[in-house]
Amino acid sequence: MGTRDQLIDSTRELLWERGYVGTSPKAIQQRAGAGQGSMYHHFAGKKELALAAVRRSADALLAAADEQFRGPGTAVDRITAYLRREREVLKGCPIGRLTQDPDIVADPVLRAPVDETLTRLRARLTEVLDEGRAAGELPGTTDTAALAATIVAVLQGGYVLARAANAPEPFDQAVSGVLALLAAR
Amino acid sequence: MGTRDQLIDSTRELLWERGYVGTSPKAIQQRAGAGQGSMYHHFAGKKELALAAVRRSADALLAAADEQFRGPGTAVDRITAYLRREREVLKGCPIGRLTQDPDIVADPVLRAPVDETLTRLRARLTEVLDEGRAAGELPGTTDTAALAATIVAVLQGGYVLARAANAPEPFDQAVSGVLALLAAR
Repeated sequence: MGTRDQLIDSTRELLWERGYVGTSPKAIQQRAGAGQGSMYHHFAGKKELALAAVRRSADALLAAADEQFRGPGTAVDRITAYLRREREVLKGCPIGRLTQDPDIVADPVLRAPVDETLTRLRARLTEVLDEGRAAGELPGTTDTAALAATIVAVLQGGYVLARAANAPEPFDQAVSGVLALLAAR
Repeated sequence: MGTRDQLIDSTRELLWERGYVGTSPKAIQQRAGAGQGSMYHHFAGKKELALAAVRRSADALLAAADEQFRGPGTAVDRITAYLRREREVLKGCPIGRLTQDPDIVADPVLRAPVDETLTRLRARLTEVLDEGRAAGELPGTTDTAALAATIVAVLQGGYVLARAANAPEPFDQAVSGVLALLAAR
């Protein structure tokens, strides 16, 4: 892996572990095994590096979701596979977590890829739910965009509950609860 | 208000705005209009002050939730009132947000009141759902503890979506989606 990629991946890890405010250029250099000159050769600063890191994490997140969304089975089957797939629950979502970072939310440029990723995820889920509604799995009156927001919120909030408890159980409960509601429709 | 209360309330505000990592003892003193000597007279340090602040925010959160949970109407009415009540959506949850703070989650003493608050909130919601199940509003097979986790997760995740979008709409959508599922039962 080249130094540029190494810097981006080290930033992804540190953003996930420590957040934007808690990640220093020096920590990125140390994790990447790169010097200060090398970092500033590839990136104007921490903000540009964070943007590249967030974009790469976002691509990975959307690609992983698409694996389940394009999988076999009914719409509810695919959403179940998505919600139940193995996750590093206690680490939370590498994108969603950034919304709690005041310096990310206050900066339109840094917030943009976070917003875009969650918006695209909800749009993809809405498509899957639309397929389920068209196939008669869900009532014709279902507001699929609202339901997609609910499902993404359950994931993001499930991470919050799991991190509070330092245990994955509340995440699993939150997912079970929404799947039971979906199955009952 | 005495200096001690002033220090606690200033810490509550700063934790909500900036998180634990982003809040310095100096910022607390400035916001409270208190000197360094006064702060260390009342508290051993930032950690003790944060604990007092988190406990006070937790009490306020649980008392506010109980207002709706003890209100009039069916269980679903009361949960609807709770989810729909006016909130500072873009600021997020003063307790839930702390789970994204690596120094809070890594410290069992600081994590404890966050965990306890969300656990108590889920327990109170489970009681309300149990009443609804007993009254025949919800099917007898409903896993009320799981559903309570889902509802709290929708709130916490709704804040994440709203902060990403810098707009309350995704929060409102997530709440609408779960209420539609609940109403359909």
